[in-house]
Amino acid sequence: MKKYAIGLDYGTLSARAIMVDIETGETIAQSIYPYPHGVMETHLPDGTALAPHWALQDPQDYLEAMVDTIQNVVVKSKVLPEEVIGIGVDFTSATVLPVYKDKTALCMTDKFKNEPHAYVKLWKHHGAEQEAADVDRIARERGEEWLDYYGGKVSSEWTVPKVLETLRCAPEVYEEADYFLEAMDWIVWQMTDKLSASACGTGYKAFHFRGKFPPKDFFKALDLRMENFIEDKFPQTILPIGARAGGLTEELAATLHLNPGTPVGTPIIDAHASVPGGGVGKPGEMMIIMGTSSCHMMLADKDAKIPGVQGIVKDGIMPGYYGIEAGQPCVGDHFAWVVDNCMPAEYAAEARELGISGHQLLTQKLQGYKAGKSGLIALDWFNGVRSPLMDFDLNGLIIGLNLQTKPEDIYLAMIEATAFGSRVIVENYEKAGVPVNEIILSGGIPSKNPLIVQIYADILNRPVRVCASDQACALGAAILGIAAASEMVTGYKDANEIAAKLGKVQEKVYLPSADQAAVYDALYKDYLTLHEYFGKGGNDVMKRLNALRRQ
Amino acid sequence: MKKYAIGLDYGTLSARAIMVDIETGETIAQSIYPYPHGVMETHLPDGTALAPHWALQDPQDYLEAMVDTIQNVVVKSKVLPEEVIGIGVDFTSATVLPVYKDKTALCMTDKFKNEPHAYVKLWKHHGAEQEAADVDRIARERGEEWLDYYGGKVSSEWTVPKVLETLRCAPEVYEEADYFLEAMDWIVWQMTDKLSASACGTGYKAFHFRGKFPPKDFFKALDLRMENFIEDKFPQTILPIGARAGGLTEELAATLHLNPGTPVGTPIIDAHASVPGGGVGKPGEMMIIMGTSSCHMMLADKDAKIPGVQGIVKDGIMPGYYGIEAGQPCVGDHFAWVVDNCMPAEYAAEARELGISGHQLLTQKLQGYKAGKSGLIALDWFNGVRSPLMDFDLNGLIIGLNLQTKPEDIYLAMIEATAFGSRVIVENYEKAGVPVNEIILSGGIPSKNPLIVQIYADILNRPVRVCASDQACALGAAILGIAAASEMVTGYKDANEIAAKLGKVQEKVYLPSADQAAVYDALYKDYLTLHEYFGKGGNDVMKRLNALRRQ
Repeated sequence: MKKYAIGLDYGTLSARAIMVDIETGETIAQSIYPYPHGVMETHLPDGTALAPHWALQDPQDYLEAMVDTIQNVVVKSKVLPEEVIGIGVDFTSATVLPVYKDKTALCMTDKFKNEPHAYVKLWKHHGAEQEAADVDRIARERGEEWLDYYGGKVSSEWTVPKVLETLRCAPEVYEEADYFLEAMDWIVWQMTDKLSASACGTGYKAFHFRGKFPPKDFFKALDLRMENFIEDKFPQTILPIGARAGGLTEELAATLHLNPGTPVGTPIIDAHASVPGGGVGKPGEMMIIMGTSSCHMMLADKDAKIPGVQGIVKDGIMPGYYGIEAGQPCVGDHFAWVVDNCMPAEYAAEARELGISGHQLLTQKLQGYKAGKSGLIALDWFNGVRSPLMDFDLNGLIIGLNLQTKPEDIYLAMIEATAFGSRVIVENYEKAGVPVNEIILSGGIPSKNPLIVQIYADILNRPVRVCASDQACALGAAILGIAAASEMVTGYKDANEIAAKLGKVQEKVYLPSADQAAVYDALYKDYLTLHEYFGKGGNDVMKRLNALRRQ
Repeated sequence: MKKYAIGLDYGTLSARAIMVDIETGETIAQSIYPYPHGVMETHLPDGTALAPHWALQDPQDYLEAMVDTIQNVVVKSKVLPEEVIGIGVDFTSATVLPVYKDKTALCMTDKFKNEPHAYVKLWKHHGAEQEAADVDRIARERGEEWLDYYGGKVSSEWTVPKVLETLRCAPEVYEEADYFLEAMDWIVWQMTDKLSASACGTGYKAFHFRGKFPPKDFFKALDLRMENFIEDKFPQTILPIGARAGGLTEELAATLHLNPGTPVGTPIIDAHASVPGGGVGKPGEMMIIMGTSSCHMMLADKDAKIPGVQGIVKDGIMPGYYGIEAGQPCVGDHFAWVVDNCMPAEYAAEARELGISGHQLLTQKLQGYKAGKSGLIALDWFNGVRSPLMDFDLNGLIIGLNLQTKPEDIYLAMIEATAFGSRVIVENYEKAGVPVNEIILSGGIPSKNPLIVQIYADILNRPVRVCASDQACALGAAILGIAAASEMVTGYKDANEIAAKLGKVQEKVYLPSADQAAVYDALYKDYLTLHEYFGKGGNDVMKRLNALRRQ
């Protein structure tokens, strides 16, 4: 009998399921379901307007996506229910929703369907800037030891600022909610009828550090009504990555044509899932997941304080290691901005004639380019900065423009800027004693664009490989689905072993070119100077511009 | 009998003649002639390649343009030869060519037709950067008193660096040439058979200061072979603006259907011609001529040292006053860059549907904008900086970009940046004791785009008016054509009186809005900070980027 696992991957705009052979790691079927409500940034379905920087989702979309995609892969792959030995889930994060103890989301009720705070606050919801600043200040005043391990600055994207925002702006939602959950934990609860929280989401986004949450006094200092937040409104069970979260319910099993009790693994953040998906099961290799934004993942033997990392979580990515995460909030979004705004009509016509996308055309025009030839240097801050500055009140910059500057020069400068931003992160890891010997890129961008991969190799000045699967996250989820089943069924000892065997990396190694790397070393010095000057108070013009923009 | 004058205006891409009524200043006929060879930036007609930053022209185009446009306006206007009482000429500058004493340009001969240095070096030819640096250094070492009056820094656009470049790179051209002339002086020589140099071109571009050139020792220090440059290869007669340079030759009069001896005025630089053309005949009003680049012109009662101005010349713009000139080398070119590079296909389609240009569409999208709403600030340095920094090794910069930034935001930032750049110039005039009470804008841009005029009023925080004629330069040339005739014929005492009567300014006054001006005051502080930091050695990243770009 062949054995299979399902990986269920919840992204920003759609969910995807894949059916994976547990011996080979091959995907034998897949299915995608775009969320009907997408990302709600300007208004609710009923027309209620949202403030700028908001990003909500409708959790009903997640349920529909689960049923639709799993049914599809089961039917397409023609596997038998008993051949499916596990299901794993990965999800965007911190993607947080208030729910009742009967699993219903508050936004699904008539009472709250017009209340924006009752919906899912997507990871990129940036409505809690003030709350993040307050949480940060209070944590600092109290000398909370976890703060430095979260990069020394609290992000508005994380759980506690988002919940505090709800408490301040819609206290009735806070009071009525039995739980505030990561969407990943809510969906696993729906699947298994067992409520728990993943060490991954909890560790990276909700201040769960060295086995405990911050004390009640901390939450009380945020708001008197939050004193018992953890005890009252958070799951009490926290599960390590690689563990079994529960078994599929009878009802859902029937709907999905699977066996009741099929093991469901502890869910993982989508970016983190690509670590096992890309075959990384041990320290030394950095996985950079490039999408609209980028995450930089490492496994380490020991704790380390690294400026601007977003969390160091034991068992948070793979069992037995500290999982370290840093990130850039805007990577592919920069490239898309260029295509959307700097693709003149004649370029669009040329792309149409060649039957290629704007990205492909600009990339084609850069073939044979040399480092420094654009004459430009940029800061990759079009959506603020996560690591290391953790400041979303910063913006982008392009220097060196002249009358000969072409759209492809700007495109190149954006690619280089994101690579320089990654180099800052890599160097911070190494300074903290976490060596980065090799880089693995995953996501659609590196798998489609070898030029970008080579530029990353030249700028990071290290060998770079690329995940073989453009579904590294979903494959990682499937690997954790296998890990949820017993060794007797799968033959695998732990998730690390499964990742090493089934994770997919292309054979090709992109080596840095010495000439290019030397030029980029010089440009990187300029990048760092600008990074310090505009990012650390030398010149706060970006903040002043933002203040004017908001007036 | 009605009386008329002809204004002959040589621009960068074409020449224009207008026939003007000397009582009313009305243009009764006009004609344009685009130069067949345009601007040669990459190769000569025979295919000889040119280095980057070169800009040459073929002087044969100037002769054809003169004959074609004057014949046309004479025919179109149906005026009689005796009704044309004078001809005035304005020309781009420093636009320099080597010629034989029989008036033939060297590039017109078989011997030199393949030699780039034998052609006209157009004002925007930037091949003499090294020579400009050397001239500057030597002038400074020798303590040449004129240097500070030329803005304290020698530009590669001026006469002497261009000639030195020829001497160094093509010594046989230097040796063979009998004269190096401004194109304006060459064309007037062709028309009158009298060789002289205009005080305007000589004063602003060739170091003729307080009635004399730099001493022989200065030229000898540049190159031993240049010791006698002024005596040997420069016209010995220098004529003030407003004077008669000569009378039309018999031969040309026949060709043009005009009377022999028709007075031809001392020629003037094109930008400077718009001062009389815009009705400015006395101090207090600044004329800003906005085209691809901008010039800032003032008349003053006295000498003044102003950082970065390009010349202070007695009788150089209008008789009896010191004419002061400053400038920005890139203004409309910025706006065109945005339209060429940041006009996505859907914008282009929208403009086509509305039957308007890209400039008009972007302007339309900015209706109702508020100062600061773009969230951007830019430096208007896409083609280097003339006043006050006089540094063509600087480049543009845009700060504050984010994922919401639209093409029209960039367009707005470019308009604002050029206005901030003008404000730096205005404030330098005032600091030097030359009050700027009112601004007059001339050129196609302000006459077509009221939004730009209002932004200039808000940023310069002064009343702004606009030249009524979009041919202010040609009208100014015609005014100097009238001044070339005797008072008995015209009834006018001098050029100043003619300018005050015939110069054209619109009645509408654009007053600054207090709210907008306050926001722009704050943004201007940031502009100045960036101007200092990137322009004066705080961070030389732009120069490093240029060095890489050139490698």
